[in-house]
This record gives sequence, C-alpha cells and structure tokens, in this order.
Amino acid sequence: MKILISNDDGIDSEGIYRLAEAMSEIGEIIIIAPKTEQSAAGHSITMKIPLRIQEVKVRNKFKGYAINGTPADCVKIGITHILKELPDIVVSGINHGSNTAISIIYSGTVSAAREAAILGCPAIAVSVTDHNPKYFDVAANVVKKLALKVIKNKLPEGIVLNVNVPNVPAEKIKGILPTFQSKSKWNDSYEERTDPYGNKYYWLTGKMSDSDEEIHNDQTAIKNNFVSVTPIHFDLTDYKVYEELKKWDL
Amino acid sequence: MKILISNDDGIDSEGIYRLAEAMSEIGEIIIIAPKTEQSAAGHSITMKIPLRIQEVKVRNKFKGYAINGTPADCVKIGITHILKELPDIVVSGINHGSNTAISIIYSGTVSAAREAAILGCPAIAVSVTDHNPKYFDVAANVVKKLALKVIKNKLPEGIVLNVNVPNVPAEKIKGILPTFQSKSKWNDSYEERTDPYGNKYYWLTGKMSDSDEEIHNDQTAIKNNFVSVTPIHFDLTDYKVYEELKKWDL
Repeated sequence: MKILISNDDGIDSEGIYRLAEAMSEIGEIIIIAPKTEQSAAGHSITMKIPLRIQEVKVRNKFKGYAINGTPADCVKIGITHILKELPDIVVSGINHGSNTAISIIYSGTVSAAREAAILGCPAIAVSVTDHNPKYFDVAANVVKKLALKVIKNKLPEGIVLNVNVPNVPAEKIKGILPTFQSKSKWNDSYEERTDPYGNKYYWLTGKMSDSDEEIHNDQTAIKNNFVSVTPIHFDLTDYKVYEELKKWDL
Repeated sequence: MKILISNDDGIDSEGIYRLAEAMSEIGEIIIIAPKTEQSAAGHSITMKIPLRIQEVKVRNKFKGYAINGTPADCVKIGITHILKELPDIVVSGINHGSNTAISIIYSGTVSAAREAAILGCPAIAVSVTDHNPKYFDVAANVVKKLALKVIKNKLPEGIVLNVNVPNVPAEKIKGILPTFQSKSKWNDSYEERTDPYGNKYYWLTGKMSDSDEEIHNDQTAIKNNFVSVTPIHFDLTDYKVYEELKKWDL
C-alpha cells in the first residue's frame, strides 16, 4: 500500500513525522510537504513563481520531497509529477491545532487532503486539538486504523475525512463519531500596533464562537473528548438556493 | 446603500474599477482590495506577517484601501476593522477569467465574497470568462441588476452568488441561468524548465476537462453564452456520506 503524507505545518514539523511513523506500519511512505509552514493557506496554489522540488530524507528515515509551495501544490505536483500515479491514500497532518467548523475553509491541512480527493484519491486530514499537542500518538493511532477502514469500505470519490482528535491520553477518548461541520465562526478582530517607524500594522486575532450541544457537531464532539470524523466534499453548490433561484426573475 | 468592492486581481486592475463604476449607480462605493495580484489565493488568510492598510483614491474617483494581504484578508479586515459594520452587499471582481467548476475552490475572487458571507453579509463574486476580457460592461451591468435582486429577495445568510459572464457583446448573451458547480476538473501537468544555474523548476499548466451538456451546469452555461449564477455555501459536509459513516464501525 502506497501512502502519500503531506501537511501545512511544513516537512520538518513533529506532526508529520509522527504521522509517517504510524502509517509506515501499514504501508510504504512518501512524504511530499511544504518546505516552510503554510498554516491558513486555504486551497491556494502557486502560479506566480515556479515550484522547486528538493529531495530530502525526513529525520533520516522517510523518503521525502520539500516543495516551496502550498499544501495543495504539494499534493498536486506530488501525485501528477513525482509519483505519476495515484497513491492508495493521502493523509495530511498531523496538524497542530483543530480544524473544525469554519476553520476547515482556511486550513491548509484540509486543502492538501482535498486536493487529493479532487485528483480521485481517498484522503484523510488529521488534526490534534491543541497548538502545542502532547498526544500525537493517540491521533496517529486513530488515523492508522481509519485509513484501513477507508481502503476496505471504499470512500466515495471526492470525499475527504476530516479528523480531529482531542489532545488527551487514549483512555480519556470516549469514542469516534461521524460529525458534520459546526456553524461556529470566528469573532475576528485586529490588534493594531505601531512599528518603530511610526506606521500602523495589524494582527488578526479572534475567538471561535460556541456551538450547540448536538454531539455530532464537530466542535461539540471534540469538546466532549470524542474523535470527530467529518466527511467533506468539494461541490459547494447550495442546491436548496439553486431551486429557489429558479423562481427569481433572473 | 453601502457597497464593499473587492477582488483578487488587485486594486489597480481594470475589472475592479469597471465594477465600482457600475455599482456606484446604485450605492455608495468603498473599495478594499489586495495591493498586488492574488489569483489562485483560495481562502488563504495572512497570519505570519501583519497586515497594513493604505488609504488610496482608486483612479482619482473611488475611496479605497489597499491591503498587503489576500482577498479574504481584505474583506475580513475591511468589514471588522475599516467599516466596523456590515455593508449592504459585498461584490468581488470583476475577475479576469472564469471561476467555474473546481476553479471555485482555488479562486481568490470567490473567497473574498465567501468571507463576506461568513461574516453574515450578502455577497456576489463576478468573473468574465476570458483572461483578456473585452466586455466588462456586460458583466458590470448584469451584476448591478443582480445586486438589486439580492437585496430585494434577501439571499439566505451564508450564500454567495458566483456569477460568470461570457466575454461577448450584450446582444449575444442568451439569458441568465441558475446553475450548479460542474464536476469538470483540471488535467494538471507541470512544465519542467532549467534555470541558468542548472536547477530544475516547475510551472503548473493544465486544461479543464469538458463537462456534460446539462445547461444548468456552470461550465456548459457559459459555453452556450448564458450568464451562470451558482449559489454556493460554506458547509462542506457531505451529509450522504455522513449517514453512511454511521454504519461504519468507527
């Protein structure tokens, strides 16, 4: 089984290494990931500068390629140019920090997996719900088992399983739940500062709004120490509004 | 009526100016857009460098702010920090080149509008289907009328109307159709070149695959000289697979 591993935290991050270690127990690993951190890269791709491919040995153990691009670039060039064929599965992560609710839209981790799904490959994105994760092993173990189920049960084409694993010891995990994307959003604000030259600049800050108590909501699931598994797709059409628009006099 | 205008081609592009001109006939215009071109920025946001806001007069006519960020950044900081309130509508474009099918995912133009929708504001993204558009006036006129309908009919919260206008004279436009996102994809490839120092580098190239003949398919609609209006949302959950996953032994 050939497993392509990518992420958005960069090829040198702890999360990608821990993921590769776990996945190497069930297949042959190739790591193709951004050379530098690409958090919040969304589904951006690089078109104004050319990409470069640097062959590396990740922690002296795994065959890898570092790309000067975004997570989506890595999977796109990885599959179409480096591998020249679909791997059996693409796993993106382990992200340092959760990717639930609206964060799915901004996430580079999810977009790497989504790029794989677009190319027709089964894909999983995996995150630990803390920016300083302690329990990579728990997430790695969950995703290893889930990957086998994805291969066995055959995920429909175009689907990514977006997995969020609470940053707690294994014995505190209450179970694994299929979930949907929460409607929680960021309450954004910008912190204004002044540079040494008297010019103003702004940092984005924000707090995620609470979600309702429905346990199959991705946010609520992780808050209650469940592993959250959300199937996402890339057809953005709102079919209800599409039907509605037919009644408008366009 | 307060109208926020943004785009991904940059604040100096022809498309944004032509859009502002048309929209100024129905409301007060404020332009908040990237300082430089941000095509294929997807829904990326800037977190590793701070944003800077530069007040400008767009073509000596429109009040504007140039931001050193992505399209989504512009709308986020524009609404939360510059305007400090929701405008009546956000219109993003006019993009040079179509944003249909899978390109919606990569598009900065669509993401600017989507950011507005996330913040709770009615939003339209508009593109002309040619990278060297000749008929901005046709698109501008379509979107002006559509904006009035959006305000009147009240688009449900969280919805973006993604509008693609064929690059043809007004008399060749066959009508305006509600559409859904085509399943067409890019057949990607990478062109390999060698720099003067002997190092290889890669440019992404590709061709969009054909779509079926169903006229309510965004790709097919524009190919047949219809204006395509696709309602898109930001809940990426695939609810069918979500139900399916309940049967898996997770």
